Amino acid sequence: MNYIDIIGLVAALCTSISFLPQAIKTIRTRDTSAISLSMYCVFTGGTVLWLIYGIMIISYPVIIANTITLILAGIILAYKVRYK
Amino acid sequence: MNYIDIIGLVAALCTSISFLPQAIKTIRTRDTSAISLSMYCVFTGGTVLWLIYGIMIISYPVIIANTITLILAGIILAYKVRYK
Repeated sequence: MNYIDIIGLVAALCTSISFLPQAIKTIRTRDTSAISLSMYCVFTGGTVLWLIYGIMIISYPVIIANTITLILAGIILAYKVRYK
Repeated sequence: MNYIDIIGLVAALCTSISFLPQAIKTIRTRDTSAISLSMYCVFTGGTVLWLIYGIMIISYPVIIANTITLILAGIILAYKVRYK
């Protein structure tokens, strides 16, 4: 793996894992007032498409990164819908 | 462009543009209480890495998508820091 791939991998890790602190904060506080419902609807939809794309090109980094993101963004979306 | 690339392009568009409604909501309300600072720090850092990665592999979709995301996520991060 060359250093360019490593940059891509760290980028994927950051943009996936970054939703973990938001999911934890949302679960703890149930405060979703400042969170945009349309953002998480469009973002979650986009993540599903990324997952389909990753499966079709058989790219494990894309599949793994977007599975993590989908779970976390899905939790935040569910809390936003539940606790408007 | 085959249908798999189109799925990837729509996915990139969704996950980038999705930050626009959150940026607009944050600018309008200045309410960032429910937004996680660590999420946007890590996410913005990851987006910078994606941009560097896109430039290195000379991929215009990656460059364009992450430039849009970086601007929008950067705005949200700036408001979070400013209006804790």
